[in-house]
Amino acid sequence: MQYNPVELIIKKRDGMVLTESEISFFIAAYLKDQIPEYQMAAFLMCFYFQGALPEEISALTKSYIESGERLHFDQGLLVADKHSTGGVGDKISLMLAPIAAALGLYVPMISGRGLGHTGGTLDKLEAIPGFNTQYSMEDFKALVLKHGYALVGQSAAMVPADKRIYALRDVTATVESPALITASIMSKKIAEGAKYLVIDLKIGSGAFMPNLRRAKELAGHLIATGESFGQKVKVVFSNMNSPLGHAVGNALESIEAIEYLKGNYLKDTYEITTALVAQMLIMAGKARDFASAEAMIRRVVEDGSALAKFAEIISAQKGNPHVIEDYSLFDQARYQLPILATSTGYVHEIDSRAIGYALVRVKAGRMQTSDALDYSAGAMLYPKIGDQIKAGDQIGILHCNDQAQGETVVNMIRDAYQIAESPKEHEKLIYEII
Amino acid sequence: MQYNPVELIIKKRDGMVLTESEISFFIAAYLKDQIPEYQMAAFLMCFYFQGALPEEISALTKSYIESGERLHFDQGLLVADKHSTGGVGDKISLMLAPIAAALGLYVPMISGRGLGHTGGTLDKLEAIPGFNTQYSMEDFKALVLKHGYALVGQSAAMVPADKRIYALRDVTATVESPALITASIMSKKIAEGAKYLVIDLKIGSGAFMPNLRRAKELAGHLIATGESFGQKVKVVFSNMNSPLGHAVGNALESIEAIEYLKGNYLKDTYEITTALVAQMLIMAGKARDFASAEAMIRRVVEDGSALAKFAEIISAQKGNPHVIEDYSLFDQARYQLPILATSTGYVHEIDSRAIGYALVRVKAGRMQTSDALDYSAGAMLYPKIGDQIKAGDQIGILHCNDQAQGETVVNMIRDAYQIAESPKEHEKLIYEII
Repeated sequence: MQYNPVELIIKKRDGMVLTESEISFFIAAYLKDQIPEYQMAAFLMCFYFQGALPEEISALTKSYIESGERLHFDQGLLVADKHSTGGVGDKISLMLAPIAAALGLYVPMISGRGLGHTGGTLDKLEAIPGFNTQYSMEDFKALVLKHGYALVGQSAAMVPADKRIYALRDVTATVESPALITASIMSKKIAEGAKYLVIDLKIGSGAFMPNLRRAKELAGHLIATGESFGQKVKVVFSNMNSPLGHAVGNALESIEAIEYLKGNYLKDTYEITTALVAQMLIMAGKARDFASAEAMIRRVVEDGSALAKFAEIISAQKGNPHVIEDYSLFDQARYQLPILATSTGYVHEIDSRAIGYALVRVKAGRMQTSDALDYSAGAMLYPKIGDQIKAGDQIGILHCNDQAQGETVVNMIRDAYQIAESPKEHEKLIYEII
Repeated sequence: MQYNPVELIIKKRDGMVLTESEISFFIAAYLKDQIPEYQMAAFLMCFYFQGALPEEISALTKSYIESGERLHFDQGLLVADKHSTGGVGDKISLMLAPIAAALGLYVPMISGRGLGHTGGTLDKLEAIPGFNTQYSMEDFKALVLKHGYALVGQSAAMVPADKRIYALRDVTATVESPALITASIMSKKIAEGAKYLVIDLKIGSGAFMPNLRRAKELAGHLIATGESFGQKVKVVFSNMNSPLGHAVGNALESIEAIEYLKGNYLKDTYEITTALVAQMLIMAGKARDFASAEAMIRRVVEDGSALAKFAEIISAQKGNPHVIEDYSLFDQARYQLPILATSTGYVHEIDSRAIGYALVRVKAGRMQTSDALDYSAGAMLYPKIGDQIKAGDQIGILHCNDQAQGETVVNMIRDAYQIAESPKEHEKLIYEII
């Protein structure tokens, strides 16, 4: 069907419901350069203001998927994946994927890069010398079938509509639309062939979602869209007020993930990783409840099989597996600057977003996709909200190669911790699972 | 000042108030191609959804004006103008401008072309053989000073921002924004140097404004913006449910305007023209009230001086002034098809917009600015809402050069008249003046 693009923009602008045929036309014509960028920008802004019904989001997701290639796995394979909406110190994928694979799930994980205050799994993987994340669809599938999982970036052939539209959203202030976020996330997770999907929907100072109400709106869209494609979706609403674990920064986080797979759990990463993998196991019918799932998960960590799976994929994806035993093979920062508390009391709040942005200054993160990273840069940060600290305590260590910037960042990170005399309770890590 | 365009779009999107400096930056950077079309499209759509405060609209108008040249007239000259928001059969400018000039006002009138269902003054003028509407700013000013008025199109030097942004709004569904409409209208009316401005804000089936509430919102913006530049503005809310006068079509309307200036008034065009010129005279201090203004207006029509002014500008603008005495000098249509009523009763409604669109089929109007016109095409349409008609009455005549299309248009026009047995009151032509 041919439509007049202006009439479709008017229809969406005026709050009417677009048909699947209209949405499919608009996206396909845009990708063929028959609809110019400015009309797509206007169209996206109408989605921002008017939202969209489940059937419109499904149609959008479908048109995204149809813009590229799609992976298909045999019916019998338990293909599962996780998506995180992004946070500070979020290295969960690095533990979750090998654990799930060690338990017999197939995990075709497509990850992204860090931007702004949040890190990205691809960058953490590439901190491992030699690790390759760029594979064709066929090679990606072959890796998953052989090793039970693979950790790759989005290839040009997969959901090109999302890649192009995301770039436009980024420069037209249309990123923060639940409808558009849903189509962007779900198109990739459906195109990669996952039958079971768990979503870590993060809420708080280090996340994109400011509150549970907004997060639930998005979760509703994600679940409905997955279901319309026959995918089972569970959403874990998790607390992103304190950075996750201790490490924030690419090499530091990879090392923390390896330590985890050696059985050296941290309280928060343990709780989140276990909750997410458990949902995958339960959806896939591998575990009947959380308790049995947790026991299975502990077993593959503690018998070394998850770590072996990680070593296996590092080798398969051309990385140096010796990093697992020898952390000096990671890039090393020249300076390690202590971060000292200047007051005594309890941690009431942590501005995790400010920490993420501060670390961009030492190249642990980036502001633009073209910015270069310093894998060795980052910080180890110990106190969580509710912890008691004393003036002079070392609350963290900054790793960097630029001493002058480093001193600024040390102060910015210290200022991100709000300390008060009154006691403060520790916060729940998982709010709810739906 | 330099700003990040995305941050400005976000600010407007989130309903915050932009400063003059921010708006001026955005418009100027766009005109220098430093901001791409897609960011302007997103920005405009945010104005559509969020509206704008008076100070934002003034800032937008100022940045439009500053994009080009501006006319300045001596302090002592009474420079006045009229703007119409557009309708069907609206040839008022062709009577109003020579009448106002004959009464000693200076009228630097910049008009537009017809588009969609509405006609444009420039097209009606160009139906006069030889009439030129393209002048430089200097030549335009010289014409106004010499003849008391001139009737021209927007030159490339005047408010180029509006020209370029209007073209983008047209293809991004952002035309219907009171804030953007205001900046577009007022920037031209301020740049041309008018000190007194009367606006004919049309409401009804042949207008863009569907109701008085929406029209009043726009009127408030127009008045506040004019005042912020020291311009006096009056708004006349007029009824556009029936086509104005009898003629719809370029040559036919020019002839109707000449007849008017010969003293052959029609009831509706008389009432609207007189109301608008009276407001100009009262604002400029030439008349103390409507009654004295009306007497002045009648005098210059009935003593032939307004008609002489029209002949004067036709000659000055290279048109053939003999059209005034010899209407056969206008293009003539080959076919004159009668439009006959098929039922008996009272006219309850007229879909004037449908009439305008129907006439596009015989090239009396255009759908795109690049479409060619047939000046001779159009219709004479007699009954108004409230008039009694009998089946078989000739309610109009279609003038066209394409007989087959003409027969379709005859039926479409007839269908635009809703006839019912119950009596229907004649409608007020002017709702209110503020």
